[in-house]
Amino acid sequence: MTTLIKLYGAPVSTCTARVMTCLHEKAVDFALVPVDLFSCEHKQPPFLAKNPFGQIPVLEDGDLTLFESRAMTAYVAEKFKEAGTDLIRHHDLKEAALVKVWIEVESQQFHPAIAPIVYEYFVAPIQGKSPDQGVIDANLEKLSKVLDVYEAKLSSAKYLAGDFYSLADLHHLPYTYYFMKTPCASIISERAHVKAWWEDISSRPAFNKVSEGMNFGEK
Amino acid sequence: MTTLIKLYGAPVSTCTARVMTCLHEKAVDFALVPVDLFSCEHKQPPFLAKNPFGQIPVLEDGDLTLFESRAMTAYVAEKFKEAGTDLIRHHDLKEAALVKVWIEVESQQFHPAIAPIVYEYFVAPIQGKSPDQGVIDANLEKLSKVLDVYEAKLSSAKYLAGDFYSLADLHHLPYTYYFMKTPCASIISERAHVKAWWEDISSRPAFNKVSEGMNFGEK
Repeated sequence: MTTLIKLYGAPVSTCTARVMTCLHEKAVDFALVPVDLFSCEHKQPPFLAKNPFGQIPVLEDGDLTLFESRAMTAYVAEKFKEAGTDLIRHHDLKEAALVKVWIEVESQQFHPAIAPIVYEYFVAPIQGKSPDQGVIDANLEKLSKVLDVYEAKLSSAKYLAGDFYSLADLHHLPYTYYFMKTPCASIISERAHVKAWWEDISSRPAFNKVSEGMNFGEK
Repeated sequence: MTTLIKLYGAPVSTCTARVMTCLHEKAVDFALVPVDLFSCEHKQPPFLAKNPFGQIPVLEDGDLTLFESRAMTAYVAEKFKEAGTDLIRHHDLKEAALVKVWIEVESQQFHPAIAPIVYEYFVAPIQGKSPDQGVIDANLEKLSKVLDVYEAKLSSAKYLAGDFYSLADLHHLPYTYYFMKTPCASIISERAHVKAWWEDISSRPAFNKVSEGMNFGEK
């Protein structure tokens, strides 16, 4: 008997949503164990024993405990490589290498620019602060340059790593989903190929199951 | 006949050094093709055709072109998995998953804190600026918290992912090497287990071959 994978997190959290989307793409059953962020459950000893950095999500598979969302998706995509969508192109070393490249682009180029913008619009207000326009503008400038590269890439291939949906595309979903609810969304929609890519990847059934729970900051 | 891997970069660059160290650990022959950063060769069309983000290094293996240093090390570690040091624990799904976790910890927790400090001490002076103490202090505070987690982890295992050297440890080498030349080095050396880990990983022959070329900012 296989143990059920447990994912400790919150459906509104971008990083939890990233892992849930991957689990759905691989058609893997799992149990979501809610972590109460507002009572800071993730900063208390029982949770810190699972992730010493005190961040959600955490994935437990039997006696294996993982943190860092991108490590979890890589693990799930590898362990269940024959199930559901092939997210890592494990039959082709070159395609797999290009998936790795664009996974790192999301991590090192896209994420550092988009995350502060999403933070200012969604998290700052909850903390009683106004969004910091200086932070937003500086990061919009960075993000625009990254999206110029995406636009060029996506004019010659349907997805980032080639003509196949992969973990590299999937990793972009949660932050971009919240970003599209901000006044800055036009920097996606004014780039034709980025817009078409976004509409494609965000309408996948695996993500739709997750995005319906992503109502952070909504009344 | 196998083609020789080409690495476009500069030996003083942290990200080039990361990939070179990996290639040496795997005992893979390669040709380093120098990129002249001072004439901004990496921002000119021939280089941008290899990496649209205009950053070094770039790895070419036959007709495959890769950018993002951590994607290159993952590719090299996978392609040459049976050669040299096993950096990804490919025979054990659980150990491999823990390697992924700590690769992400370097990328998401350690790197964002250490990189700005190294930048202020090594790059700012070249641009005629004094190191910004505010940036240094803010990031030292972040880095200290990360190193507290490392200290706890390394008191129960010899390396980050377990009792084996892996890509997760390797990825820390270049930035930490420069960091140890700054006045902030004590935050490593005052943590006994982190210090022992650093002395161990930085004395590996594969890294010694690389660090001798890491003389950025030296007369």
